Amino acid sequence: MKIETKIAHFSSPLYLESGRILEPYQIAYETYGELNEDKSNVILVCHALSGSHHAAGTYAGDKKAGWWDGLIGDGKAVDTQKYFVICTNVVGSCFGSTGPMSPMYPSEEPYRLKFPVVTIKDMIRAQMQLLSSLGIYHLHTIIGGSMGGMQALQFAVDYPNLADHIISLAATYATRPWTIAFNKVAVEAIRQDPRFENGQYEKDAFKKEGLDGLAIGRIAGHISYLSPASMDKKFGRNYVSNDGLFELFGRYEVERYMEYNTANFSRFFDPLSYLYIVKAINTFNLSRGYDSLYDAISRVKAKMHLISFSSDYLFFPEEMEHIYKMMEHNGQSCDYLEVQSDYGHDAFLVELEKFDSYIKEILK
Amino acid sequence: MKIETKIAHFSSPLYLESGRILEPYQIAYETYGELNEDKSNVILVCHALSGSHHAAGTYAGDKKAGWWDGLIGDGKAVDTQKYFVICTNVVGSCFGSTGPMSPMYPSEEPYRLKFPVVTIKDMIRAQMQLLSSLGIYHLHTIIGGSMGGMQALQFAVDYPNLADHIISLAATYATRPWTIAFNKVAVEAIRQDPRFENGQYEKDAFKKEGLDGLAIGRIAGHISYLSPASMDKKFGRNYVSNDGLFELFGRYEVERYMEYNTANFSRFFDPLSYLYIVKAINTFNLSRGYDSLYDAISRVKAKMHLISFSSDYLFFPEEMEHIYKMMEHNGQSCDYLEVQSDYGHDAFLVELEKFDSYIKEILK
Repeated sequence: MKIETKIAHFSSPLYLESGRILEPYQIAYETYGELNEDKSNVILVCHALSGSHHAAGTYAGDKKAGWWDGLIGDGKAVDTQKYFVICTNVVGSCFGSTGPMSPMYPSEEPYRLKFPVVTIKDMIRAQMQLLSSLGIYHLHTIIGGSMGGMQALQFAVDYPNLADHIISLAATYATRPWTIAFNKVAVEAIRQDPRFENGQYEKDAFKKEGLDGLAIGRIAGHISYLSPASMDKKFGRNYVSNDGLFELFGRYEVERYMEYNTANFSRFFDPLSYLYIVKAINTFNLSRGYDSLYDAISRVKAKMHLISFSSDYLFFPEEMEHIYKMMEHNGQSCDYLEVQSDYGHDAFLVELEKFDSYIKEILK
Repeated sequence: MKIETKIAHFSSPLYLESGRILEPYQIAYETYGELNEDKSNVILVCHALSGSHHAAGTYAGDKKAGWWDGLIGDGKAVDTQKYFVICTNVVGSCFGSTGPMSPMYPSEEPYRLKFPVVTIKDMIRAQMQLLSSLGIYHLHTIIGGSMGGMQALQFAVDYPNLADHIISLAATYATRPWTIAFNKVAVEAIRQDPRFENGQYEKDAFKKEGLDGLAIGRIAGHISYLSPASMDKKFGRNYVSNDGLFELFGRYEVERYMEYNTANFSRFFDPLSYLYIVKAINTFNLSRGYDSLYDAISRVKAKMHLISFSSDYLFFPEEMEHIYKMMEHNGQSCDYLEVQSDYGHDAFLVELEKFDSYIKEILK
């Protein structure tokens, strides 16, 4: 599989939903496979909150492959021998695309809290600019899970002629207060951490010792990505501290998992980016800018494929089913798969074998 | 209804499950109604994490009644014209019973982190001491919800001859990693708040400005007490900030609710007590000290009445049902009600009308 990682620079403004602009801006992206002559084999992959453009393959010296490596590659469900796959880092993120720690032109100083709020609509508008710059005006498929699934849905509504197929996993039509509440833990924990310094922290301040507030917020995140059943399986009531059950800060295995994973995360993910992306998720509402959800959904021309997970405690199956029923009732092309899974929201990243044949069939 | 609020002092040691002792210790408690001559009309009420012995009635000058005032009172389901109701503040809490901010005899200094870990077993052992001191050796009923429901179950197992009826609501037989993970947010947020000072904060340090860490942890708590559906009803996607949708720290109504309630909470609840009580909840496991859960449950002689709530996202109905099935299979006296509710775990405090007739029937 041919992999290329690039950064595209744009000197023309990106007009944002807020009325503000990003200018200049850049988009980090990765491609897998090769573009065919008539440019008819393009699949756009959209990433989730903590993801990046590194969706597949393994960088030299890295142990970990891209976040959807099990799905994307030669002979895999998203077959890179057949398709040219593009994945971009969303604006607002911290892996190469313009975000709050990018310099605020013409100064060299980072935007920090002066960075404009970006929305899911803005994220996909930036991707449209990238596609244009590559001379790509039509996509075979757009696919994504969680926030990536929101982007896929927003593409379907905002640019009805862009793609033949939309595959959205583990997403929703509008973020519910339940999810906003989970995000609120992170927002407050980050803001109230003194080392956050109201966003005035040094660049790379958290490379060695991550921001505690982000780690704390991420615990709430992990809860929402797992499920009661997956935690039972993964951790049970195992106790891992040598200091015994009756020591106040002795830890259950689930606690050690949370500490370990969130501390790691807080060393590589920028807390300002976290705040901005969480805001984009909170403000996601397919019907905004349209008369109603029905009005928005009615615009869709692509073949829609919706996948939910039975134990998803972040975006519940009923939310995807709601879109499906609306489209079906409306006579639009839509199919829906509820994957039976104990893995919670994370299933879209870890239980690929339960839905990759479904995707293979779509891309046949 | 006659209400008395008292503190009982004990100079003999309370032997704890950890092998440590509390000596001396005190128990704050409240009683409602009057003890009959043969002391056969006693109901013990057990409170949850943030509760206190103030279960019913309204103190002079207070606006808010006790936490189960809708259930306990003259002519109510727990009828104080008929029953003598006792509610004690659990050891470890901060409303008058001995806890981490109590003086560590013989010094005047608070225990702080030297306070021993207490468990649900310890909480009920302390209540046994109080009952003894009042000359009460038999109870008509023990009732409680959430951590109070754990206590009720633990009483049933540890002291099979104590009560005729056990009513346990919204509880479990052993705390699952899912709940431990929610508690973990609070544990980390409290510990990492610099004003917590590793427990060395001044007494009353947080009366005016609560500890942020406790407030952040409490957001995770509130998520687990509500449900996706109850949040939809209560908050929807309402946005309450004047500063507009595209301001980073503009707030949805659910966010305002979380901020307001958790800030209040952090001004009156002691963070060390929170850590200790959360630890008691995490370590709750009915089978500890017995060969198995079955062995523990088999000891129960009281008539068991279990109530769960369909939308409880903290202790799921299946957990209560598990106890019910075990007892039923074992030929023990047990009935089970799953209340259909959208209110989540909090339903045991707010949707009384859905189960108070069930309790009335038991206490008839």
